[in-house]
Amino acid sequence: MNTNEKGKLLVISGPSGAGKSTVIGRLMEMRDDVCFSVSVTTRPPRPGEVEGKDYFFVTPQHFQELADGGYLLENAEYVGNRYGTPRGYVEQRRLEGKSVILDIEVQGAGQIQKNCPDAVSVFILPPSGAELERRLRHRNTDSDEKIRERLLQAKRECAEAGKYGYIVVNDDPEAAAGQLDAILTAEKCRAADRLNLVTEVLIS
Amino acid sequence: MNTNEKGKLLVISGPSGAGKSTVIGRLMEMRDDVCFSVSVTTRPPRPGEVEGKDYFFVTPQHFQELADGGYLLENAEYVGNRYGTPRGYVEQRRLEGKSVILDIEVQGAGQIQKNCPDAVSVFILPPSGAELERRLRHRNTDSDEKIRERLLQAKRECAEAGKYGYIVVNDDPEAAAGQLDAILTAEKCRAADRLNLVTEVLIS
Repeated sequence: MNTNEKGKLLVISGPSGAGKSTVIGRLMEMRDDVCFSVSVTTRPPRPGEVEGKDYFFVTPQHFQELADGGYLLENAEYVGNRYGTPRGYVEQRRLEGKSVILDIEVQGAGQIQKNCPDAVSVFILPPSGAELERRLRHRNTDSDEKIRERLLQAKRECAEAGKYGYIVVNDDPEAAAGQLDAILTAEKCRAADRLNLVTEVLIS
Repeated sequence: MNTNEKGKLLVISGPSGAGKSTVIGRLMEMRDDVCFSVSVTTRPPRPGEVEGKDYFFVTPQHFQELADGGYLLENAEYVGNRYGTPRGYVEQRRLEGKSVILDIEVQGAGQIQKNCPDAVSVFILPPSGAELERRLRHRNTDSDEKIRERLLQAKRECAEAGKYGYIVVNDDPEAAAGQLDAILTAEKCRAADRLNLVTEVLIS
């Protein structure tokens, strides 16, 4: 691995039941050149949470200034707190050669693609609607109605998969992580990012 | 590997001394879903060459008809004989789920990209000019002048690398084949090619 190569921004989305976390976790084990992004939030720290590791904790006013100044690649509100992806942090890690993973929902992914056109976007898809339902039933004890609602929401998210650069089907987490790994390796071979290597051959 | 997935057309170029054949050979060992294209040629068969395996042997008139009719993805003349890539053959193999490899020079690759916009193009680059020279000297006993000429020609070809989708640096053939493998795996995950899988999730 050439550490002079800039890392990628890898945006990963997928509905509840797609098995996204497992696949990302496996990818993190497979490669030492990837890391998670650290979000900025207005939420107060919980016991044990470390500034700059779990989150960057800021006041609502500071958050608004960051958003207004274009310092966030995306931002969203969730149960009364604001969350955002700090552009400078992501850029710094990428310059250090690390590819930065963002696990994010569809709307946030859209903001990222607008603000960072060289981001690599991947949608993790369940293998079928039936399997998606099985996984959603398996992992909680909600009522049938609640599960039908979650299933509908998950399918609504899947309908957005075509807006991503790549789709990885998570039938088997190991195979899916292997495909994510291949996507990252391939994206690092893009000619547009390697013209400096051509120059090296031509002048040496 | 989902055999319902259409294979890719993988166009590979690289100068003499880049180690292209070794890398491609290693890729063929790694995957069972790739095959070489079989060219059409006006050259007479040599002893042992098999029609449809080594080449499709045709008359100059037939070749011209194929070219005029748009049945060749690219064609070129080499020491008085014509060679071309048959569109139908490539398409048929791809529909069978095989990715088809074309080992081709820069001009031919340009024709392919025009005639087959979904082709995946990769340039195999030597790690440096010095290493390129070492490899060219190592493998033949030509005069210094002849080698300088070959080196210049190889560098002229490298200067075209930016026109390809990907650049793979062949420092180590095993690593380079691994990158080719990743590129093929990643390209098969392109969202545009997988919208049928999204539909499956939505309707099942």
